[in-house]
Amino acid sequence: MSLFDGLSAFPITPTDAAGRVDTDALARILTRIRDAKVHSIGLLGSTGGYAFLSREERRRAVDCAMGTVGGDLPVIVGVGALRTDEAQALARDAKAAGANGLLLAPVSYTPLRDEEVYAHFVAVAEAGQLPMAIYNNPGATRFTFPRALIARLAQLPNVVAVKMPLPDGDDFASELAAIRAATPASFKVGYSGDWGCAAALLAGGDTWYSVIAGLLPVETLALAHASLDGDSVKAGQLNAAFAPLWALFKEFGSFRVMFVIAELLDLGTFAPPLPILPLDDDARARIKAALEGLQV
Amino acid sequence: MSLFDGLSAFPITPTDAAGRVDTDALARILTRIRDAKVHSIGLLGSTGGYAFLSREERRRAVDCAMGTVGGDLPVIVGVGALRTDEAQALARDAKAAGANGLLLAPVSYTPLRDEEVYAHFVAVAEAGQLPMAIYNNPGATRFTFPRALIARLAQLPNVVAVKMPLPDGDDFASELAAIRAATPASFKVGYSGDWGCAAALLAGGDTWYSVIAGLLPVETLALAHASLDGDSVKAGQLNAAFAPLWALFKEFGSFRVMFVIAELLDLGTFAPPLPILPLDDDARARIKAALEGLQV
Repeated sequence: MSLFDGLSAFPITPTDAAGRVDTDALARILTRIRDAKVHSIGLLGSTGGYAFLSREERRRAVDCAMGTVGGDLPVIVGVGALRTDEAQALARDAKAAGANGLLLAPVSYTPLRDEEVYAHFVAVAEAGQLPMAIYNNPGATRFTFPRALIARLAQLPNVVAVKMPLPDGDDFASELAAIRAATPASFKVGYSGDWGCAAALLAGGDTWYSVIAGLLPVETLALAHASLDGDSVKAGQLNAAFAPLWALFKEFGSFRVMFVIAELLDLGTFAPPLPILPLDDDARARIKAALEGLQV
Repeated sequence: MSLFDGLSAFPITPTDAAGRVDTDALARILTRIRDAKVHSIGLLGSTGGYAFLSREERRRAVDCAMGTVGGDLPVIVGVGALRTDEAQALARDAKAAGANGLLLAPVSYTPLRDEEVYAHFVAVAEAGQLPMAIYNNPGATRFTFPRALIARLAQLPNVVAVKMPLPDGDDFASELAAIRAATPASFKVGYSGDWGCAAALLAGGDTWYSVIAGLLPVETLALAHASLDGDSVKAGQLNAAFAPLWALFKEFGSFRVMFVIAELLDLGTFAPPLPILPLDDDARARIKAALEGLQV
């Protein structure tokens, strides 16, 4: 399998209230993912709270990951930043630390134009000199990649994959066909939005960029394998067990739910970065019940 | 007039490619605004590119402003940041530098919940200890303030104003009546979106938070005065002269257009922070023509 194939697990990044990474807790989370034999780690993705972390803390997180699981499975590092020079610096940091790949979201404040996103990706891809995935995450960046822009970026030597949001009406087949028709044969098309990703893999998607695999790697990998094997009956059964959790992801945002799951798994004491608030006791009870339904 | 009444001019913040503020150029821009007798300055707003600047550079910009025009007219400082602790630090910095008021946008990556925005505003208002305006800018923050949340925030001792986006259908009268019914009598309701703000003032809005006034303060103040005086005929005539510029603001985003205007006014050589790209020659020619129509 290539770097951007299969199940990529996106861990949370535990920090203290001041935004300093708790590398012991992060190492515990990364070790569980490695031991489950998930195909890759997506460090410092949206779930990893990269947007809330300083360059120095992001460097510490990457060093922790490479020191803990480097060489055991590929580590893909999110290097999104509002400024192009900052994203370039983060890409160089990741390369210097030994990361295997990069993930780049067009973080924005002023909404970006297509030409700006293109130039930004060219600059960061050149700085990083690592295989890179386009992080198409309109919910967080407010930029939706036109297919023509994905096709144009896929011509860059280091841009080898895209992480897509779930398509309207879950029409993976049409979208995959359209993207594949416009990109090189080796270009990998994957999805995020955990509740739709078994279907994405069954439809021929290359990658499941998974939030939940960051904390439930064994259970998620079982669902990913059934889907990659084309076993839609088994995938449907396994996915049904996740349904209560998917509902909570949609209701509260997966970012908030993950901090609760980490505590329920006794991995430490966790809180999201303010202004994101910890979920209340009622939500925690519902998350606990959803995990019990998964027999975790 | 109170701090948040009348025409508030939002200057760009000139920087070099590395994001260091050019305080000489900023002082030139601020002096023009002061000399035009605009009612206040909105430093480090969206137009001021606050999201692209480090804490240190934002401090330098505030120091420059207070040293150049402090005491001559109120300086309101944007203190938005993704992390609550960062926004609190920026609010303390602004207060320490002598700023007169604050403007706070709920900057987000992970979309925020109402409770989170409320707690964020409580924390920053307490840290800043200055009169503060709610910066309701869904286009940049992806958070739209429900009226009930504005009303709740308006109960906080330091939250005394709101900067609203233009309402659907330009129905200022209904929106103003609804907000006024839910907030203290002293609470100020202003608008941004320059093309609609003469109408906002004519309809009884308290404040025009103006991008263009950052570079064309004399011309904009004439329009603001006609509107504040209720002279709809004169306001309509003056606004019509701005129409080509408003069209360019809508087409390219006012942020990009302002850097061109600053160069056309011979205030220096300016470029927006990458990934925002400078506009091309065709756009520049159209901006030049729009300025000529204003007899600038």
